[in-house]
Amino acid sequence: MSAASPRTGHVAFVGAGPGDPELLTVRAVARLHDADLVLRDILVPDTLLAATGTRAEIVDVGRLCGGEESQADRLARIHESLIGGYRAGKRVVRLKSGDSLIFGRAVEELQLLIEEDVPFELVPGITAGIAAANLAHIPLTERHLAPSVLLCTGQTAGGGTDRIEAWASLLRGGSTVVLYMGLKALSRIAPRLQSAVPADEIHVSAISQVSSPQQQVVSAPLSRIEAELASHPLPMPVVFILGLCAQPLDERLAPALAPQANHE
Amino acid sequence: MSAASPRTGHVAFVGAGPGDPELLTVRAVARLHDADLVLRDILVPDTLLAATGTRAEIVDVGRLCGGEESQADRLARIHESLIGGYRAGKRVVRLKSGDSLIFGRAVEELQLLIEEDVPFELVPGITAGIAAANLAHIPLTERHLAPSVLLCTGQTAGGGTDRIEAWASLLRGGSTVVLYMGLKALSRIAPRLQSAVPADEIHVSAISQVSSPQQQVVSAPLSRIEAELASHPLPMPVVFILGLCAQPLDERLAPALAPQANHE
Repeated sequence: MSAASPRTGHVAFVGAGPGDPELLTVRAVARLHDADLVLRDILVPDTLLAATGTRAEIVDVGRLCGGEESQADRLARIHESLIGGYRAGKRVVRLKSGDSLIFGRAVEELQLLIEEDVPFELVPGITAGIAAANLAHIPLTERHLAPSVLLCTGQTAGGGTDRIEAWASLLRGGSTVVLYMGLKALSRIAPRLQSAVPADEIHVSAISQVSSPQQQVVSAPLSRIEAELASHPLPMPVVFILGLCAQPLDERLAPALAPQANHE
Repeated sequence: MSAASPRTGHVAFVGAGPGDPELLTVRAVARLHDADLVLRDILVPDTLLAATGTRAEIVDVGRLCGGEESQADRLARIHESLIGGYRAGKRVVRLKSGDSLIFGRAVEELQLLIEEDVPFELVPGITAGIAAANLAHIPLTERHLAPSVLLCTGQTAGGGTDRIEAWASLLRGGSTVVLYMGLKALSRIAPRLQSAVPADEIHVSAISQVSSPQQQVVSAPLSRIEAELASHPLPMPVVFILGLCAQPLDERLAPALAPQANHE
């Protein structure tokens, strides 16, 4: 720690989870607490950083979708901060919403580090879809019923008929599909999915602002979800969970108790 | 806290993550720290519990696959402990490897609680596949390249030709497939997948004992992965990550630097 031996820098890509500070990992808290510089995505709330007791300089870098700055300009800015910070001996955290590797566009940023021979660490985070399922009590897999889970986005669904068919095939087999950033895409996707799956049997749960105090859940069969959301609009971001089993457990199992049928 | 007002019980299903205590969430640590009784899956290591400072009674319940006790007997035993503990005013944690809702068989246990009107909380955990990707620097999604991620198991792949075809279809479109509990299934799955995808272009990374000090990674194209694993056998549990992008980033990007081609 003396002036004669300058500290070696450190770069960590840290998954922030869905937003609630209690859903950070222990390692994420440690990295944030010890950081000198935090480059954060816009979806990560101030309350999360405050809870870690960090004294780092906080820099907001870019957004999850759209915006005026070009992707190249944004990358160049992140590049400069990451590598500049590292070479200045700083402990730098690149803080990503959810998990860095699940729709976090981390690879483009990591590529720059590898090309410049800057070492890095990846700290996993709770991705919004899995957080939403836990907090809203919605199964993702179920023995004999839901054999797999697909995580995908609404953004990449534009025009992709083959992709809709792949989702439909999974849904027909009982698998769960978790759709990130799908609120705008839903009106485009839903009618095409409806014609490819039993739309009264596929449940859709929409979870808004996952893990925040404002979290809301709207759940309906695929055939009715658009009408439900029209009468009960949800603020973004929204995660959708679709599947034969994708209904809140309390709702799915509670009515079955009323008649006490088939229940010993 | 007086004898006249007995404490209300509390049941939390907690995702333990892949095993490293630093990958527990803050909420998971708090629930374990405060627990009176912990019912744990066999994959959760003692070191993880010790790190939380818990003084709870620890009871081991069942295994992730196979075994002598029937599933019904095992469920009855868990049922009794969960509900008995709750009714005795205990803070009970059902500790699941990874995340409770990702191949954790939580739904069967949760159903019992709902039928008995016992409230519960679900605390998400870092699932092994996402942890493995972060710790081994393997992309799961990539803009324009890997549009989605499928989480599935080797166990349910038996005989399911339609399932292999669904995986192949996703892999051909660039998506990533994460295969849990697939070590025994690989020799059955690999030949069939190989005939359905460009097997020299699909990378397979096998990550053994994710997040432990003994973690190992073997990576090869699908066409060569069985030979690689034969000469370098991995201890279970092993998670496989398959995809056009499913190669450790350091390995994929480093060779490209050598000739300095297309590099400004």
